[in-house]
Amino acid sequence: MTYELYYWDGIQGRGEFVRLALEEAGADYVDVVRDPHRGTTEMMALLKSDAEPCIPFAPPFLKDGAQIVSHVANILFYLGPKLGLAPKDEALRIFANGLQLTITDFVAEAHDTHHPIAISKYYEDQKDEAKARAAEFRDSRIPKFLGYFERVLRHNPDGSAYLVGDAIGTVDLSLFQVVEGLCYAFPKAMKGYERHYPAIAALHGAVRARPRISAYLASPRRLAFNENGIFRHYPELDADSA
Amino acid sequence: MTYELYYWDGIQGRGEFVRLALEEAGADYVDVVRDPHRGTTEMMALLKSDAEPCIPFAPPFLKDGAQIVSHVANILFYLGPKLGLAPKDEALRIFANGLQLTITDFVAEAHDTHHPIAISKYYEDQKDEAKARAAEFRDSRIPKFLGYFERVLRHNPDGSAYLVGDAIGTVDLSLFQVVEGLCYAFPKAMKGYERHYPAIAALHGAVRARPRISAYLASPRRLAFNENGIFRHYPELDADSA
Repeated sequence: MTYELYYWDGIQGRGEFVRLALEEAGADYVDVVRDPHRGTTEMMALLKSDAEPCIPFAPPFLKDGAQIVSHVANILFYLGPKLGLAPKDEALRIFANGLQLTITDFVAEAHDTHHPIAISKYYEDQKDEAKARAAEFRDSRIPKFLGYFERVLRHNPDGSAYLVGDAIGTVDLSLFQVVEGLCYAFPKAMKGYERHYPAIAALHGAVRARPRISAYLASPRRLAFNENGIFRHYPELDADSA
Repeated sequence: MTYELYYWDGIQGRGEFVRLALEEAGADYVDVVRDPHRGTTEMMALLKSDAEPCIPFAPPFLKDGAQIVSHVANILFYLGPKLGLAPKDEALRIFANGLQLTITDFVAEAHDTHHPIAISKYYEDQKDEAKARAAEFRDSRIPKFLGYFERVLRHNPDGSAYLVGDAIGTVDLSLFQVVEGLCYAFPKAMKGYERHYPAIAALHGAVRARPRISAYLASPRRLAFNENGIFRHYPELDADSA
């Protein structure tokens, strides 16, 4: 069965966390909105359906046959075991899900650096507030979140190569993507992050070097970061870390 | 086995979503920080542990024997089947988890109305920005989220009494709590909400009338809403809905 991923075209966005898992597993999937034979209309029809029982609130969502799964963490929890990217142990799967939800929060905060007041308004209309929120994000929140994931890697009884257990999982791929996004959006603040978070930096490098991931990153399926996505590079929101 | 809930004392906060599930099920649990024989120290020791493999990022978290489960949605996904508050059907459990994550986002946005810039700073230091963000929340976000849940109730093939299936689940209790919080924080904006969202209003009333929930709400275990929690009543952030 081909997985169907529904997400906006033109940005990596939250869909990217799902794509990385599908790509790492070499799964058979179609990126519905980007597919020339499908497109946005199909996604909007589902979102606006007046009958579908399991309507999603927003993209991304995944269709696996009749099952619709929405929210990144939910999609990855669902896909993990099917793609061989989840711990076999149930207790560790629950732990991994908690980590994934911490990443969800981290990503939402990264988004709010450029939209602290209203997602319905332009960045330019909330630039001053964005500067204040971005400063807080750089100085307090990035260190808090990265410090946490560094500790989790360090405490892993199976070694510091992965966040959970002794094999790569969806949450490792997601942490890779967060680091990619932060380095794009806040190159000054992230400069030298490897010194403070060596286990995260090692994980980031190891994910990047995985054959399917590196092939994916070099392919046209991987869009470039841009200023419509979650991680945006606005130089005025960046600064050397305190 | 007694469940151990770890959360800050003094506020309902995110811990309340877990409490409502435990209370509805009549589960054996201890609210660790509020327990006179336990207290905050124990929670902080766990959060700051230098050895624990499954350290949480933040409260609330649940201990069930050796298993630590963090994040509200993860805790409820874990507890649901054990407490008889989850659909038996796996596909519906996944759908319910997606709804719970939509509630997570809704709650985070409710929080950010009074802290749009920095959670490390006082409300008073971000009051103007809070007014702008609260206006967006009242005029755009509340209608979007409540409109969504109203549709989900209306589309439920098993009837509009519950969000998923034909029996009460953790996500119904959570939606009840969100409505409680919104009515406390934004009484003007929520005035007459029943007309626009009749299925949500009916669910809210039905949850409130459940014997264990009404006993809980009348007990000293249920703290009052206050201006340290997620849902805060600052009159200057409220207004009649557009």
